[in-house]
Amino acid sequence: MGSADYVYPATNVECSHRVAIPPPQPFVKSLKYNLKETFFPDDPLRQFKNQPTSRRFVLGLKYFFPIFDWAPSYTFDFLKSDFIAGITIASLAIPQGISYAKLANLPPILGLYSSFIPPLVYAMMGSSRDLAVGTVAVASLLTASMLGNEVNANENPKLYLHLAFTATFFAGAFQASLGLLRLGFIVDFLSHATIIGFMAGAATVVILQQLKGILGLEHFTHSTDLVSVMRSVFSQTHQWRWESAALGFSFLFFLLVTRYFSKRKPKFFLVQVIGYLKKGLNPPSFEDLVLVSPYLSTAIKTGIITGVIALAEGIAVGRSFAMFKNYHIDGNKEMIAFGTMNIFQVRKLRVLVIQWKFPGPFSRSAVNFNAGCKTAVSNIVMALAVMVTLLFLTPLFHYTPLVVLSSIIIGAMLGLIDYEAAIHLWTVDKFDFIVCMSAYAGVVFGSVEIGLVVAVAISLLRVLLFVARPKTFILGNIPDTMIYRNVEQYTNSNTVPGVLILEIDAPIYFANASYLRERIARWVDEEEDRLKTSGETSLQYVILDMGAVGNIDTSGISMLEEVKKVMDRRELKLVLANPGAEVMKKLNKSKLIDKIGLEWIYLTVGEAVGACNFLLHTCKPDPLKEESEAHNKV
Amino acid sequence: MGSADYVYPATNVECSHRVAIPPPQPFVKSLKYNLKETFFPDDPLRQFKNQPTSRRFVLGLKYFFPIFDWAPSYTFDFLKSDFIAGITIASLAIPQGISYAKLANLPPILGLYSSFIPPLVYAMMGSSRDLAVGTVAVASLLTASMLGNEVNANENPKLYLHLAFTATFFAGAFQASLGLLRLGFIVDFLSHATIIGFMAGAATVVILQQLKGILGLEHFTHSTDLVSVMRSVFSQTHQWRWESAALGFSFLFFLLVTRYFSKRKPKFFLVQVIGYLKKGLNPPSFEDLVLVSPYLSTAIKTGIITGVIALAEGIAVGRSFAMFKNYHIDGNKEMIAFGTMNIFQVRKLRVLVIQWKFPGPFSRSAVNFNAGCKTAVSNIVMALAVMVTLLFLTPLFHYTPLVVLSSIIIGAMLGLIDYEAAIHLWTVDKFDFIVCMSAYAGVVFGSVEIGLVVAVAISLLRVLLFVARPKTFILGNIPDTMIYRNVEQYTNSNTVPGVLILEIDAPIYFANASYLRERIARWVDEEEDRLKTSGETSLQYVILDMGAVGNIDTSGISMLEEVKKVMDRRELKLVLANPGAEVMKKLNKSKLIDKIGLEWIYLTVGEAVGACNFLLHTCKPDPLKEESEAHNKV
Repeated sequence: MGSADYVYPATNVECSHRVAIPPPQPFVKSLKYNLKETFFPDDPLRQFKNQPTSRRFVLGLKYFFPIFDWAPSYTFDFLKSDFIAGITIASLAIPQGISYAKLANLPPILGLYSSFIPPLVYAMMGSSRDLAVGTVAVASLLTASMLGNEVNANENPKLYLHLAFTATFFAGAFQASLGLLRLGFIVDFLSHATIIGFMAGAATVVILQQLKGILGLEHFTHSTDLVSVMRSVFSQTHQWRWESAALGFSFLFFLLVTRYFSKRKPKFFLVQVIGYLKKGLNPPSFEDLVLVSPYLSTAIKTGIITGVIALAEGIAVGRSFAMFKNYHIDGNKEMIAFGTMNIFQVRKLRVLVIQWKFPGPFSRSAVNFNAGCKTAVSNIVMALAVMVTLLFLTPLFHYTPLVVLSSIIIGAMLGLIDYEAAIHLWTVDKFDFIVCMSAYAGVVFGSVEIGLVVAVAISLLRVLLFVARPKTFILGNIPDTMIYRNVEQYTNSNTVPGVLILEIDAPIYFANASYLRERIARWVDEEEDRLKTSGETSLQYVILDMGAVGNIDTSGISMLEEVKKVMDRRELKLVLANPGAEVMKKLNKSKLIDKIGLEWIYLTVGEAVGACNFLLHTCKPDPLKEESEAHNKV
Repeated sequence: MGSADYVYPATNVECSHRVAIPPPQPFVKSLKYNLKETFFPDDPLRQFKNQPTSRRFVLGLKYFFPIFDWAPSYTFDFLKSDFIAGITIASLAIPQGISYAKLANLPPILGLYSSFIPPLVYAMMGSSRDLAVGTVAVASLLTASMLGNEVNANENPKLYLHLAFTATFFAGAFQASLGLLRLGFIVDFLSHATIIGFMAGAATVVILQQLKGILGLEHFTHSTDLVSVMRSVFSQTHQWRWESAALGFSFLFFLLVTRYFSKRKPKFFLVQVIGYLKKGLNPPSFEDLVLVSPYLSTAIKTGIITGVIALAEGIAVGRSFAMFKNYHIDGNKEMIAFGTMNIFQVRKLRVLVIQWKFPGPFSRSAVNFNAGCKTAVSNIVMALAVMVTLLFLTPLFHYTPLVVLSSIIIGAMLGLIDYEAAIHLWTVDKFDFIVCMSAYAGVVFGSVEIGLVVAVAISLLRVLLFVARPKTFILGNIPDTMIYRNVEQYTNSNTVPGVLILEIDAPIYFANASYLRERIARWVDEEEDRLKTSGETSLQYVILDMGAVGNIDTSGISMLEEVKKVMDRRELKLVLANPGAEVMKKLNKSKLIDKIGLEWIYLTVGEAVGACNFLLHTCKPDPLKEESEAHNKV
């Protein structure tokens, strides 16, 4: 792509412009620039520049604790909005917290703790004003699945609790250190398609697990994959309790109908949830961290995986709201806030498991947003509401049947299976659809980790394939212009007799140097065959449009050198058009520029074709210098 | 990069050309095309097209056995050249084979077998006419290092032999199946820089191992890393035999001086090598394959790693000679040939270890080339010469002192440390230099595998970083033209008032979508700050040059959608210039094209700027349609 020409049709004089070799930069300077772009792309310190020290301190405080930024201008009107929003999300968070605790095989009361301290931490440190912090089903499932392989929650509940607790601690530490080390971009490697497939798969698995509650089964498999669950369910058909199933499905139907009719209004889950809830707040518990060898690695692994997923989803949700309200979310800062949140709840509360380190899912934040929240104070209100519940209202939650709990979970999970998004992926990008389906199938038929690893691996493979097998096109002239474009995209474009114009569409790296050498040779072969059959002018020039070649390494330089030699042997002239700054720098340093000849490197394809045509028709040795001098005088 | 314009200065009428949406292609067709480009980039079946079946059979035979291609036209003159070349390389191969066998802790005679059958197989199946097949030091070292961790060659020589033998078999099977499955591109991921660093590191390690022979030590470490070897050497200074060291260094000096003076002539290693050589050929030995569990995985791992390195080096060497003589090397075909060679020698000879599956190193092939070889018959001559040696001359090699053997190895290894190439890497591409040094340090301070893994990981990281942190530039107008280029490369270019032109230099994928969103926002912020300070025209248009954006995925589409919304909110107009076929297809399928507006997508940056300028100065709502109609009439 990216080439055209500049002609004065009246005089028909081609003017050629020199391709500039970028001014040399000291190594240290360019290294510093590259490091900055890699780790500080958002330039977080920009506001600190040219400021006195005291001002810097205030700005730094505001940077880590955005509450100082908005608190001074907080008004009573804001408080009214935030109060209503906070109470609303609390009414969602309480039943959700308890349900999701069941998912992670943890005592239900722990679900409530999760909605108490973390929102307070986030209110002070987070940069999103709309994110409602709380528990999330997928994280609960991850806990159950990953820790459940090591320890049986029913047989050894205390160890299981401590492990979950340790995993939360490591997730928090991992998140905070990613943020501090400016490695937030690791989260970017979980693509949108991966998250859609992963969430849908996790939701499917959670729904399958609820068959236990719906069918009133006593025994159930600890595996989460479809095959094991189905085998477990259908091996004990005689145990199914039909009255339980009927109640469960009726309630689920009721939930779905209610939701359908209130689709654009906040959803109030005014239901009670079963559980052995202990009243009151718990003492600190750093001593409960399990730091002994046999389980430590499991806890760390669980912590890291859930930490990354939590971040990916939390940041994505926060960002979509930030876009609506036009403010900025700093990914690395968010990580520090999430991480502190998780470490903190370890300190203050007994067991605050992975599921509670999760930032609020989209639905809860959407409610918060719709309920008119102005600032993160809504999170503080929610925390207070939860605290009141913890202190005084827990007995109320004692009498909910398990089947209702299962129905609530299924109802919530069905919303996570975003089949419309999957259809959209299929329409727009087949490869993303494959990634999404792999994540789904991996989670449903294998495990949560398998799904995640497969999806990330396929996504990375795509990036590597893009570089390993770059597109190469033939460019043709768009009629009545001097613009040259891909002949497949612009079907009305015409090739130039005697000249083959190829565009290379990726950086030339070791991974594609061999491929490009062979592909260029094949293009030339095919073009010569075609010309032989049709009896047209024989091929004399091969123009490589380097406009899209962003970088080149030493393997790429060797490749170009070989191509140049092969062209020389075949008596073809190699011409380069529009090489970028990096490419020119390296052509120059490797002296390849002298072998190709600076006079055979043009600023645009149009100029290159102009020069070739001129030579084809006049057969002068090197008219360009004269042309360019003539132009300079004009 | 990649944009310019087309103006008639006389009339000053901008003409705009529509950006084409590529014609829709059926999914199956485009999938087929992509698979072909990935696995059959060299179109190996092209010559089979439109041929009768009998002809296809002949071509197929020639494809797998190139000997049928050149044998019919073989002349006596060729034989004369090949005979001399064959004898010359045999005189190199015999001492090298024996020396390298010592490196791999194997009986020296096995080194000779390696130079017997493999050249015969390669002569029939290989596509390079100059490659001299034989043993290579690095592979010997790999064997010693990887198998030596499992089995002590001195304590259990039989098991060690069998393991080495099994590893060779797997290396062969792996190579052949890579070739058959068209996965040859995996070898491309070992970049030039990696191989330079790896070879130099391996040579250093081999030289360190020779300290045992030079200093006449009895006991020596089995580890290969620098620290262990140095500790082993300096812990037994009282055991050093000074007479041995003096003899060794003198001989090494003699070798190096001889080589210096005969630098551009074939090197004849007319020296004898120690060993307990058994006369005669050995019976088949498939039953010696070790297929039992504790060692099988080691053998397979060793086989695969050495197999890949052997291929990478062999193909690189073969290709550089092919370039000189202008013929084509087919990577995948070479793999099948190398693989068969290794499987075959397992069948025909007792133990032909990894070191013998290696194709000849550069030096031996260079000798072959200089000695005037015409075809692979030189390999056959060499094989015969080696056979004669095996049958009749082995007793002669009995009386060489070990110290001389060590000197020969050191002399050969010094040639593999290509410090000039490393300096070249530093000059041309700092990142490649880092890759090279990591490979070197990994091999010298860790192990052969560590060096390899580190270098490949860093190389891949570079590819991922290219995509994760793409370059974005501001484009400026090159004076007196309508061409727009990177302002940093073209220091004389000028920015356009009221218009910010950004070029994105990589595909927009999940891995960089967040980065690009933030980076674009930052460019706009910085530009607005600059304009505010200088009091120029405020910013009104942001043009994204998509010329170098080869592809976009759904995360990228969402990113563009967000950028569009943010621009709308900031009252800036988003304009796209020169999107490629893939990008246009996906913009169209995702309906984003309607949100941006087809009238805001231009073929070149020049046209986009023209339209913006026109609007800036006349403030008409949408003049382009009229313009373009006007132009169509002209």
